[in-house]
Amino acid sequence: MIRLEILGLSNFPEIKPGDDLCKIIISVAEKNNIKLMDKDIIVIAQKIVSKAENRIVNLNNIKPSKRALELSRITGKDPRFVEVILRESKRVIKAVRGHLIVETKHGIVCANAGIDRSNVAGRRDIVTLLPEDSDRSADNIRQCIKKLLGIDVAVIISDTYGRPLRMGHIDMAIGVSGIEVFKDYRGTTDMYGYVLRVKRIALADELASAAELVMGNGAERIPVVIIRGLKYKVSNNKASILNMPERKWLFK
Amino acid sequence: MIRLEILGLSNFPEIKPGDDLCKIIISVAEKNNIKLMDKDIIVIAQKIVSKAENRIVNLNNIKPSKRALELSRITGKDPRFVEVILRESKRVIKAVRGHLIVETKHGIVCANAGIDRSNVAGRRDIVTLLPEDSDRSADNIRQCIKKLLGIDVAVIISDTYGRPLRMGHIDMAIGVSGIEVFKDYRGTTDMYGYVLRVKRIALADELASAAELVMGNGAERIPVVIIRGLKYKVSNNKASILNMPERKWLFK
Repeated sequence: MIRLEILGLSNFPEIKPGDDLCKIIISVAEKNNIKLMDKDIIVIAQKIVSKAENRIVNLNNIKPSKRALELSRITGKDPRFVEVILRESKRVIKAVRGHLIVETKHGIVCANAGIDRSNVAGRRDIVTLLPEDSDRSADNIRQCIKKLLGIDVAVIISDTYGRPLRMGHIDMAIGVSGIEVFKDYRGTTDMYGYVLRVKRIALADELASAAELVMGNGAERIPVVIIRGLKYKVSNNKASILNMPERKWLFK
Repeated sequence: MIRLEILGLSNFPEIKPGDDLCKIIISVAEKNNIKLMDKDIIVIAQKIVSKAENRIVNLNNIKPSKRALELSRITGKDPRFVEVILRESKRVIKAVRGHLIVETKHGIVCANAGIDRSNVAGRRDIVTLLPEDSDRSADNIRQCIKKLLGIDVAVIISDTYGRPLRMGHIDMAIGVSGIEVFKDYRGTTDMYGYVLRVKRIALADELASAAELVMGNGAERIPVVIIRGLKYKVSNNKASILNMPERKWLFK
């Protein structure tokens, strides 16, 4: 039998700009009687990373551009919110009533450039941006845990996204450190020796989704989850390899 | 702390048409020293459900139609394979070299109508179709476990799919029984009392992805996974509510 454990750390404190997430995770794990171990995978909700890195914007300080006003009319979204989305984006992919889909500076195609309004003290006029570089954020935490505890873990920064063609949201990986993003079955054989030609599992996304099962919606305050027991390959690849390049898009 | 367990049942026998999956799962769980419990979620790979239900087609018995020959030329796929795909589909969504995306009879938009060639004894000329009604398949197994063990479990039939805009495959739910497909945060408040307006998690898909973490590619023969420890709502909804209706598609 193979057994994985998914451990949600409870009683996580509220995170403020400048907080040292690494130390907080270590201390909360201790309070939860969890001894972090080699090969643990630590999944961290984007929201607390963004807060610690002060990726917080007060919409009252934002003056919308002409383009933002235009897109606000089309989408029905607050023009100041649209302005912040545009500043975080390479380009607009789709703007229709209720939806503003962009490609972020990081290359993620998603609604609102991953910016959202919930779970920020101060409420509606305060929004959080994605971390500037979620892979770097993940890497910093991994290196810090290595330094403080002497163990090798993997770190994944996760966020919640909608999906084309499928109802509902799931969590995906936007930053990774210390783990191979894909589990590649191409070239391996199945149980009858048939060579698999296409299957390549987005392991980091599946881990983010598995962690979400215990994360809840923020009111429950479980922004950090430990996944234990998985055999995985260590790698220095980045989450951005999960973004499909435009030449491979079948739907435009 | 919240703890979930993901338990992959090893030494699963090869499944043949007519096999009683329910009894086999109970017996393999016993051999793995797992006592199935109330509220366990049993995730079952589509492939063994299709085999047990004899959803197996020998391409040597298939005569491709004119339409199949045409699509074979466009996609580069075996015309007999294309013919079987068409028979399982409502319509073709996209046909380009290397890709045949259809809407299946069940309403799933995916490549090759979910039909594939791996992990079937007899190899390349044998393909497995999706179950006729994966919700019914899941329900039969749930009812049988209730009858034989007197416990209430949830059952999810999972399969591996590619995704628009995102590299790599993940597992999703194509059949469910006894569990609410969505975890709905709409109308709930976050930790600051802000009412969440859009977030509705595709719980069944996340559970399928979590189970895949231990399933492997078939050579490892772990087609059944128990997820234990999750609080969920019992429901009689179906996996088909995960299929986005065309009027909501942003990309066409």
